[in-house]
Amino acid sequence: MKSSFFQNLETFGCNQAVPLGQVIEQLVFNEQGLIPIITQDVESKEVLMLAWMNQKALQQTLATRRMTYWSRSRNEIWVKGETSGNYQTLKSMCFDCDGDAVLCLVTQQGAACHTERKNCFYIEAQKLNNRAVVTSSVS
Amino acid sequence: MKSSFFQNLETFGCNQAVPLGQVIEQLVFNEQGLIPIITQDVESKEVLMLAWMNQKALQQTLATRRMTYWSRSRNEIWVKGETSGNYQTLKSMCFDCDGDAVLCLVTQQGAACHTERKNCFYIEAQKLNNRAVVTSSVS
Repeated sequence: MKSSFFQNLETFGCNQAVPLGQVIEQLVFNEQGLIPIITQDVESKEVLMLAWMNQKALQQTLATRRMTYWSRSRNEIWVKGETSGNYQTLKSMCFDCDGDAVLCLVTQQGAACHTERKNCFYIEAQKLNNRAVVTSSVS
Repeated sequence: MKSSFFQNLETFGCNQAVPLGQVIEQLVFNEQGLIPIITQDVESKEVLMLAWMNQKALQQTLATRRMTYWSRSRNEIWVKGETSGNYQTLKSMCFDCDGDAVLCLVTQQGAACHTERKNCFYIEAQKLNNRAVVTSSVS
């Protein structure tokens, strides 16, 4: 499962670089051709959502700086905010040690969640009293 | 793909609750029985890593407060830090609107990454000069 390309990068020092195209070529996409994307607000550091990109969506995101995912429900390229106006502007994109996950820092226009909540992670586990609590309502 | 259970939760107001067991039962695990976990440092808000849990690992994490994943390379339950000593203590666990991703805030002992870097996302895309740069070295 380990990619030798990314194992080699582990030994790199700070500021050492490789061609971006090579890294993208070596990313570990799953059987559906997708890689998980963590989207984090660059200012608040809040994690907004987890979504998926294929290689084309990732290239398009880098080219346009507009977060562009693969919609698994609609089975198509999905420019976040295209219908809602809640665009996300890419500020930085980082790949992880195994090349199988991506972290994007963004500026979020409006709400990230389709429910119009600020972020998607609004259901909190409370183990002590064995319940799950909704932590924000739709405004 | 949309779960009607989580669609129903969308309509809940702030502080409305359901039994935790019901939510865990309804989580959307993939074909391998896994769900992606975003692990974020509760203090620095840094995203440390993305890993996977099966239902058992998730239950064990909630019961022990010690982050416990499913290792896809070793094909076994993996208590993070068991060999390295770099344990993660769970501070909060939240599920997303679709029930197919989990965000865990943790206190991290030592380094999160197996390379001994603080976090796993140390390879940054620099579109302008078409390179990917390693942003930290192993200390």
